[in-house]
Amino acid sequence: METLSKNKIKWIRSLRMKKNRDSEQLFIVEGEKMVQELVNNHSDLIECVVSTDKTISFNHSTFLADVQSMGQISSLKTPNRLLAVVKIRPKKSKNAKFILALDGIQDPGNMGTILRTADWFGVDEVICSKNTVDIHNPKVVQASMGSLFRIPINYCNLHEYLSKSDLTIYGALLTGESIYTKTVQKEGVIVMGNEGNGISEEIKELVQTSIHIPRFGESESLNVAVATGIVLSEFSRG
Amino acid sequence: METLSKNKIKWIRSLRMKKNRDSEQLFIVEGEKMVQELVNNHSDLIECVVSTDKTISFNHSTFLADVQSMGQISSLKTPNRLLAVVKIRPKKSKNAKFILALDGIQDPGNMGTILRTADWFGVDEVICSKNTVDIHNPKVVQASMGSLFRIPINYCNLHEYLSKSDLTIYGALLTGESIYTKTVQKEGVIVMGNEGNGISEEIKELVQTSIHIPRFGESESLNVAVATGIVLSEFSRG
Repeated sequence: METLSKNKIKWIRSLRMKKNRDSEQLFIVEGEKMVQELVNNHSDLIECVVSTDKTISFNHSTFLADVQSMGQISSLKTPNRLLAVVKIRPKKSKNAKFILALDGIQDPGNMGTILRTADWFGVDEVICSKNTVDIHNPKVVQASMGSLFRIPINYCNLHEYLSKSDLTIYGALLTGESIYTKTVQKEGVIVMGNEGNGISEEIKELVQTSIHIPRFGESESLNVAVATGIVLSEFSRG
Repeated sequence: METLSKNKIKWIRSLRMKKNRDSEQLFIVEGEKMVQELVNNHSDLIECVVSTDKTISFNHSTFLADVQSMGQISSLKTPNRLLAVVKIRPKKSKNAKFILALDGIQDPGNMGTILRTADWFGVDEVICSKNTVDIHNPKVVQASMGSLFRIPINYCNLHEYLSKSDLTIYGALLTGESIYTKTVQKEGVIVMGNEGNGISEEIKELVQTSIHIPRFGESESLNVAVATGIVLSEFSRG
């Protein structure tokens, strides 16, 4: 196994930045479980693997790193013993009818959790506004727990996308109808807004059915990943 | 306004550790919104305030800090201009009937989000097993968005507590009945388990009604804060 060189360390570290991920069309995946899953299910996506354990071998270009080098390339507080550099490949969705649209989600942890939740509830496709955090950000990848590789996710001009859609456009808004009384079916585009500001004014105009989660206590708001989970659950429960 | 001394910096930094928070019965609250809310609603809890802005004045012992000193005492990536040292004071609950029990939640972000969610759905009290992350951990305080000050939260031997409870004990378990078909009312103790391992064996035995959130897609699991939100929503929707 080849030892991880300083140049390779520099190259992998550079992928922490979106502009480098975009130009190289590569991103970083960490953790034994996710790397193993990739090797098993999406082998063709792997550019190379870095391991701190020389007994682990793959049919891929694999570099041996000491704990210190792994620490340099890892975004985790406690670096794992496996890391992979993976190819970005857009997944096309066919005939998506249950779509989650994200309008400016900023926090990578929230974004990853939203993808994981969307995957649990069988969302066909996730559409992101251009100012939504990059799904290949290392923290998003980590929090998504592999869901990133399963759901089609696309970035676009959300206003344009929604304007053209034939599906009902639902939006989570404070002024909306209670999701407990509104009858919903598992078809449509559900728009969730930014952590601090909710759905932007421009997108709000396109929402056909406003929905909201009733409050029984005193919190000012719900975390957006939690709210997404509750809304998707309501659409799924039938 | 007195300038924040090196000794005070050291003292505030020491409150990042649970053992020091426990012995001093003090913890740190950051951010303009939360500090202002504390000043307005729980003024008696404030030990002192640290500000980087000398134009902000309070009826409390206030220290002026430069941006660098604030950075030293802050747990935030982007330190805010206000920080308060706050007294720990247990809140007693009376006649709690809608209780959330946490069995070993580890992640501070999840914990804070769970408190915020419990507060949204009007949970009367949160009971935590002793191995659940400390609610006065700076990251929990931050993610709870003030809910920490509104809900009674108590740590105890969870097994003993549940054994003595007269309320129905619900547990979120993979083997449980679908929350969409099981009729639930807003009364009982709802147990949510650890991020990786779920509810511990010891506590599982005390669960009277197992419930689970049906899966429609491929995620292996839901984030525990999202799952808590969905379960609390089901209990609340009536």
